[in-house]
Amino acid sequence: MSRSADTWIMTAQCPSRLGTVDVVTRFLKESRCYITEQQSFDDSLAEHFFIRTEFRPLDADFDPEDFHARFAPRAAEFGMAFDLTAPDSRVPVVIMVSKADHCLNDLLYRYRTGQLPIEIRAVVSNHPDLKPLADWHGLPYHHFPVTAETKAEQEARVWGVIEETGAELVILARYMQVLSSELCERLAGRAINIHHSLLPGFKGAKPYHQAYAKGVKLVGATAHYINDDLDEGPIITQGVESVSHVDYPEDLVEKGRDIERLTLARAVAYHVERRVFLNDQRTVVFTR
Amino acid sequence: MSRSADTWIMTAQCPSRLGTVDVVTRFLKESRCYITEQQSFDDSLAEHFFIRTEFRPLDADFDPEDFHARFAPRAAEFGMAFDLTAPDSRVPVVIMVSKADHCLNDLLYRYRTGQLPIEIRAVVSNHPDLKPLADWHGLPYHHFPVTAETKAEQEARVWGVIEETGAELVILARYMQVLSSELCERLAGRAINIHHSLLPGFKGAKPYHQAYAKGVKLVGATAHYINDDLDEGPIITQGVESVSHVDYPEDLVEKGRDIERLTLARAVAYHVERRVFLNDQRTVVFTR
Amino acid sequence: MSRSADTWIMTAQCPSRLGTVDVVTRFLKESRCYITEQQSFDDSLAEHFFIRTEFRPLDADFDPEDFHARFAPRAAEFGMAFDLTAPDSRVPVVIMVSKADHCLNDLLYRYRTGQLPIEIRAVVSNHPDLKPLADWHGLPYHHFPVTAETKAEQEARVWGVIEETGAELVILARYMQVLSSELCERLAGRAINIHHSLLPGFKGAKPYHQAYAKGVKLVGATAHYINDDLDEGPIITQGVESVSHVDYPEDLVEKGRDIERLTLARAVAYHVERRVFLNDQRTVVFTR
Amino acid sequence: MSRSADTWIMTAQCPSRLGTVDVVTRFLKESRCYITEQQSFDDSLAEHFFIRTEFRPLDADFDPEDFHARFAPRAAEFGMAFDLTAPDSRVPVVIMVSKADHCLNDLLYRYRTGQLPIEIRAVVSNHPDLKPLADWHGLPYHHFPVTAETKAEQEARVWGVIEETGAELVILARYMQVLSSELCERLAGRAINIHHSLLPGFKGAKPYHQAYAKGVKLVGATAHYINDDLDEGPIITQGVESVSHVDYPEDLVEKGRDIERLTLARAVAYHVERRVFLNDQRTVVFTR
Repeated sequence: MSRSADTWIMTAQCPSRLGTVDVVTRFLKESRCYITEQQSFDDSLAEHFFIRTEFRPLDADFDPEDFHARFAPRAAEFGMAFDLTAPDSRVPVVIMVSKADHCLNDLLYRYRTGQLPIEIRAVVSNHPDLKPLADWHGLPYHHFPVTAETKAEQEARVWGVIEETGAELVILARYMQVLSSELCERLAGRAINIHHSLLPGFKGAKPYHQAYAKGVKLVGATAHYINDDLDEGPIITQGVESVSHVDYPEDLVEKGRDIERLTLARAVAYHVERRVFLNDQRTVVFTR
Repeated sequence: MSRSADTWIMTAQCPSRLGTVDVVTRFLKESRCYITEQQSFDDSLAEHFFIRTEFRPLDADFDPEDFHARFAPRAAEFGMAFDLTAPDSRVPVVIMVSKADHCLNDLLYRYRTGQLPIEIRAVVSNHPDLKPLADWHGLPYHHFPVTAETKAEQEARVWGVIEETGAELVILARYMQVLSSELCERLAGRAINIHHSLLPGFKGAKPYHQAYAKGVKLVGATAHYINDDLDEGPIITQGVESVSHVDYPEDLVEKGRDIERLTLARAVAYHVERRVFLNDQRTVVFTR
Repeated sequence: MSRSADTWIMTAQCPSRLGTVDVVTRFLKESRCYITEQQSFDDSLAEHFFIRTEFRPLDADFDPEDFHARFAPRAAEFGMAFDLTAPDSRVPVVIMVSKADHCLNDLLYRYRTGQLPIEIRAVVSNHPDLKPLADWHGLPYHHFPVTAETKAEQEARVWGVIEETGAELVILARYMQVLSSELCERLAGRAINIHHSLLPGFKGAKPYHQAYAKGVKLVGATAHYINDDLDEGPIITQGVESVSHVDYPEDLVEKGRDIERLTLARAVAYHVERRVFLNDQRTVVFTR
Repeated sequence: MSRSADTWIMTAQCPSRLGTVDVVTRFLKESRCYITEQQSFDDSLAEHFFIRTEFRPLDADFDPEDFHARFAPRAAEFGMAFDLTAPDSRVPVVIMVSKADHCLNDLLYRYRTGQLPIEIRAVVSNHPDLKPLADWHGLPYHHFPVTAETKAEQEARVWGVIEETGAELVILARYMQVLSSELCERLAGRAINIHHSLLPGFKGAKPYHQAYAKGVKLVGATAHYINDDLDEGPIITQGVESVSHVDYPEDLVEKGRDIERLTLARAVAYHVERRVFLNDQRTVVFTR
């Protein structure tokens, strides 16, 4: 959303301990950083602390490297990891797709109109179908076909693109291939997948057909980080839609498209706005 | 809702065949019954037809028995089962509870204020706790404790109440005992249970604790007919609510109460307004 | 949604009277048309009847003109207007826009992927900005600038396009000009506008700024037919989204985009699927 | 929700200035108060700062009066108003009703089951109807009839009850009388009203009938603080529900009851959990 042009984001996390908020906010004040929004949460079961702050430096010569260097020793005392995000920063992204274009089209629209602070460096697909869409947006499109035999090789090419482009985030926008454990591990915490069901319900293939068979009255979509168990990574956000007896499986597929793309776009926005923290198998998400 | 004082409901179903709508609507016209609302659906996979009609008899001497007798032969040609519900009819109900009172309190409120066309004949529980609530509403309260050893006997007493009261519908308003297969079968299609998850996700015990462990961002409730597999009967309606990282399991339990009671009340309303049809393991629900 | 390839739609309406359903369904049966879904409603205050039927002709040589000719006399007896829509029919459409592209982009996506049974014949705008988007979809784009002085002339050109293209439906997808009463009247009942508030709240200009000033916690969008009073035409559907104190007016504008385009797309789908009936200043909408 | 038994709440607000967060969090750390959740917001248009903190004192002998005395001078430097809420505190409440009982019944249920940390000191009504409900909950019920002539006198009696009971919060749970400006002013910021529309739409009498006339597809409810202009006070929260052409005005009234009581209960919870701050004609609400 409309973070103003001079607003930085600071995120931090560490084991629970007295003074975790203070060490952050005191430093910000001393550094003449004006806090406009702040949320913190201390997970009493996991005994872990999370904080997200938006601030405006009051001095024109604010230097993030200097900020980092000066705060590092204080953070170290708390075992605190922290991160600064500049007002104009854009997360470098690679998007992976197959043939369905509803999620890609939505992400490209938000990218093109500046609604998502991302920089799409490449679109990768195991099919050629969506190349014209990428072309029109002036984006490189890599068609890497895949078979059972060539999977390792194909994933190496995918990984090559991720490395070469310097992508920080990979978005699986209805990429219909199961990634190998190796690639999953490499992408853990930095790849977001959209699954077309309310996980953990209807894992695996054809979730809408499963949903039809069970006669559910709500279908949904789940955006989550991938980890080694494909449909089991930490959930970022979920969306839901009402259905009824008139909806045959193909209707569910069609109805689900809107909720899939909205849910994925929301998850990506949360991620790049630094609202999401991994918390073991779960997430902390400081929504607006 | 506010069905007017002279409005009858006719429901019918039969195998798919040309003329299923016509046989109903033609008869209604010939009987000078004025249709105010009608919905029909023909399930092309199950090859079964469902119809629900609200109508006002134009003649003061409308006689449902005569209507029934005259329509029966036409229905028989189609293998059609049909049912008439009078404007002032109230479905006789037995409610089963344990200790949690949020669903019971909600049903009693709607009953007391005339929002639900039901007649509660008895409240049955394996605990004494909710007796004062039933007392205040002037309702018989049967406390039938149960142990593993006395289960068969206890269920016989429960069944006795259902039979004696002439209950057409049994509402399991957070009754925390697993019913035996025998009782489940006897109640198939005429007992509504509320399960505190979005079935088929999180079946079984402690669904909110399961949901917490999985880190879901939505929790829900499912109202369904019971059948022999307890949390697997045909779903009538489902409700959902957003949760976040600040919600510990006990918060989910608390947050879930509103969605449970609203979902159960909606299912009961659909049932007694004759909006729900069993369709094998699924339901057809003509909502408003 | 996925109406199957052989399913026709019949809609009809007339003053309330005994036999309105029967006259339709009897004829369908006699014509060997198999009803798959049907909804009817009799408005007891307006004393008007509405019906929508989906059916499959059982005979391969189904002839809609013959159907029409044979049913017309029966309809006439009831003062009934009726309409048939073929399985493969596509409503010819002109879309009007200004500079904002979120609604246009969404409609073009659904059009391109066959989700909306429409045929976009032209895009008309008072600005040149969205021409590339229309170009990429291979659609004619008419840039008709407008000033207070040239309004009559510009509207004549707009009307010219509507006439020449044979558009049945005009979609005002964030066209930011007030139409003259003359054009409004010509388009009454066949032009759908999206207004970015929950009408009748926040009529007129800058509704999100009005909403901010009032401190509302929900914002919304309204899709409605235009009539002579611009933001007052019969409402087809409305959508809503939660907002909070952190949302400044420009955030509301941004947040509102999703709900605007979803609400407009839903209204268009309802219209072209023949689900919407005008009922004086209100609508009857047979949703799924 | 389940704030744990040792968790205090601190809220504070003051004009915007560098160091507003720091002055709070530094003091909490020095006082060995462990922050479990914190949210702050600086309104850049109003130039005002708001903060809400949940914390656990690490020392057994935590003394709120001492805390208050020691923090007061620091707060004074910032022109900061602040407040402490004890873990076991319950807000003393007077509820005002007329004849409709859905909101009262809901509040009493939540009160009785400990879901709302309030202490209901009295129920006041201009009608005798709801006395039995109050009686069953063991609550004093004051029946103060009112006419145009006796309004001043009646309001004096109402005010007498508020004063004598020491009520901090007055809940207008569908009290169908317009309060005088004098009483409104006395209650400004400490009385919550539920209005049965999405304010500012449909102010005044019979909002559901207004909604029907306009043919809206969503109805809603608004919980707000009262001020001198009755239906115009700062909004706390709003709820919404879909309706359709089949809903006559009396159906809207009936459908609206659930959303009214849920919206009012949510507003009361936000208030007593110290989540709501007045911000001129708007509110800041730190939701969970």
